[in-house]
Amino acid sequence: MTDTRPTVRLRPKAEARAIRHGFPWVYADELVTDRRTRALAPGTLAVLEDAERRPLGLVTVNPNSRIIARVLDRDAEACIDAEWLAARLATALALRDRLYDAPFYRLVHAEADGLPGVVIDRFGDAAVIQPNAAWAEAHLDALVAALADVTGVGTVVKNGTGRARGLEGLAEETVLLRGGLDGPVPVPMNGATYMADLMGGQKTGLFYDQRPNHAFVQRLAQGARVLDVFSHVGGFALAALAGGARHALAVDSSAPALALAEAGAAAMGAADRFASRQGDAFDTLAALADEAENFDLVICDPPAFAPSKQALDTGLRAYERVARLAAGLVAPGGYLCLCSCSHAADLARFRAACARGIGKAGRRGQIIHTGFAGPDHPVLPHLAESSYLKALVFRLAP
Amino acid sequence: MTDTRPTVRLRPKAEARAIRHGFPWVYADELVTDRRTRALAPGTLAVLEDAERRPLGLVTVNPNSRIIARVLDRDAEACIDAEWLAARLATALALRDRLYDAPFYRLVHAEADGLPGVVIDRFGDAAVIQPNAAWAEAHLDALVAALADVTGVGTVVKNGTGRARGLEGLAEETVLLRGGLDGPVPVPMNGATYMADLMGGQKTGLFYDQRPNHAFVQRLAQGARVLDVFSHVGGFALAALAGGARHALAVDSSAPALALAEAGAAAMGAADRFASRQGDAFDTLAALADEAENFDLVICDPPAFAPSKQALDTGLRAYERVARLAAGLVAPGGYLCLCSCSHAADLARFRAACARGIGKAGRRGQIIHTGFAGPDHPVLPHLAESSYLKALVFRLAP
Repeated sequence: MTDTRPTVRLRPKAEARAIRHGFPWVYADELVTDRRTRALAPGTLAVLEDAERRPLGLVTVNPNSRIIARVLDRDAEACIDAEWLAARLATALALRDRLYDAPFYRLVHAEADGLPGVVIDRFGDAAVIQPNAAWAEAHLDALVAALADVTGVGTVVKNGTGRARGLEGLAEETVLLRGGLDGPVPVPMNGATYMADLMGGQKTGLFYDQRPNHAFVQRLAQGARVLDVFSHVGGFALAALAGGARHALAVDSSAPALALAEAGAAAMGAADRFASRQGDAFDTLAALADEAENFDLVICDPPAFAPSKQALDTGLRAYERVARLAAGLVAPGGYLCLCSCSHAADLARFRAACARGIGKAGRRGQIIHTGFAGPDHPVLPHLAESSYLKALVFRLAP
Repeated sequence: MTDTRPTVRLRPKAEARAIRHGFPWVYADELVTDRRTRALAPGTLAVLEDAERRPLGLVTVNPNSRIIARVLDRDAEACIDAEWLAARLATALALRDRLYDAPFYRLVHAEADGLPGVVIDRFGDAAVIQPNAAWAEAHLDALVAALADVTGVGTVVKNGTGRARGLEGLAEETVLLRGGLDGPVPVPMNGATYMADLMGGQKTGLFYDQRPNHAFVQRLAQGARVLDVFSHVGGFALAALAGGARHALAVDSSAPALALAEAGAAAMGAADRFASRQGDAFDTLAALADEAENFDLVICDPPAFAPSKQALDTGLRAYERVARLAAGLVAPGGYLCLCSCSHAADLARFRAACARGIGKAGRRGQIIHTGFAGPDHPVLPHLAESSYLKALVFRLAP
């Protein structure tokens, strides 16, 4: 099989050592991009060689992408078949089986789980797969078969939304590949019940990444009046209700998301402690201040304000503004959880922006929790600097 | 009262804004250190002014320390009496009451809890106080009275060990100030039982800071063979046993610490699953490799290898070496938890050292957990960069 595989080669000055040590990507300027390489179809499997023509591993090539090659296997002769895919999935499953009592988690987190560009979230008997790289789209049938085989799920949805697919030249489409769905799936997490819309929701229908931060905030919730801004399907609000919150108000711009949050609260028997407000988050924060509202616990988990380095300064100002508006709504001695899912805003910058915002609100705080995405979102050590999710919990002075 | 208080003043170029925004320290080179200031007794309360003689707050001054002044109160006229001390303690207690089911925690974490240089750990009806700043030593009677009043503890130990006291010119001594002790105190944490020697142990007898990292590792422990190196009184080993580990081996250079770990295992009814080896950690790691031992879960929580910037390079090499030796003992697909309590080694540097060590052992891993000290060890946003404790959990490839 390897006889027929094309070969791509690192430039003389490119760093082969990083690849040998597990770095999973080759950038376009590190590869010899002759006419032959440029002509490869996105998703082509190729043997990566160092400048001295020694094989470094098996890669998938996309000549249109800044990440021109992604390492699939250290063994350049590996065969990417049902068995190979099943082995990767089984390794990923063993970790989640150990961590979680029930099969609701991110099963595959792309590069870190050895399947570049592939995200799979599991919802009990159903799974949602995002094949965000051309190689995965090309191997989709085998991947779905292996997924059903290894996990036993009966229903598989392909979610083809998201920026990453565009970069890989893949079409946007969300389709049911196997089994069937009868409305949103109830998802148990931290004692709460979330409703996940696997066909119509954002991304794969539910964000599992905040689970440990939900759990931390839940410990502060007993008897508290809670405000959850950018709530989506009720992430922090429902966790707080499960933790004994007296009342939770969820704010989001999406009416369908809030309807799912409300359905979750109802499924938990907590509908009487739950309320929602649909609208722009900044406007709603300002309106709540005008109404002289305050809360024992405020959470803001906005979309990525700084999705790229170019957007960093603007994004940091937006995080500062969120912190300022939210801090003004926290009761004396209360708690404020601020989150960022921006790759470009690292922990130190995000923390400084939050502290500035809290200071401008005339408040002071101590940080009692710094959290990241949960363990079903592993990271490769070489890419850990860019881990996207940060959650900071401040206690504001009385 | 303020009439009689001395005044100290920032130099013209010093940054008063940081103090106004909650930064708690003034460095020696930022203060006008005339003969009068140099003559102040360590622990003297003084009014801090900016260069334009506007009051910034009440500080405690130590002319012998690099941190020459520490902010006690934004109100320059605050009276540091029983009521003031009780208010600070009550604020600290309210956070811990909310977080924990049982009164075993760090009650006061110095600057972040508004009591500069003061550490208080609580063990049920007993508390251990470290008054590591001269002002606290001077106000010790009032502080202990307020502590008993606010928390209801009957026993108070003063622990006067540790580097910080020497810098403040304070004597080393550990004494029972109130109540009595009848041997080590059993401490429930994460379902395990630890034995804390409040009079003779390291620091305050037990380290509460690793609690969330113990809890994370515990989730990986079911049925596992566990190795806990630098175990002290059994921190990770006993947590793993409480999580269902098949067996745990604790390694430490201190025989008294291991005896306490063994007593903890016995108190948990897990003595038959616990073993210990007294000796140098590096030697023991090498010996276990010679014996061809391996473990499903290995934890290394060493003392600070990089306590200062000067020691950073040496320290990082030591962390790398620990990672290399420990990774070699992890079974395929097993877990490795590596910790650092070095201020000087930040998260990125520590993580890189660990990754290098794992690579040199011929292994690869994904990071599934990045943890810090628990929420009873709050940090001020301005000092968060230097937060000391980091725990990384790697899953190594099969």
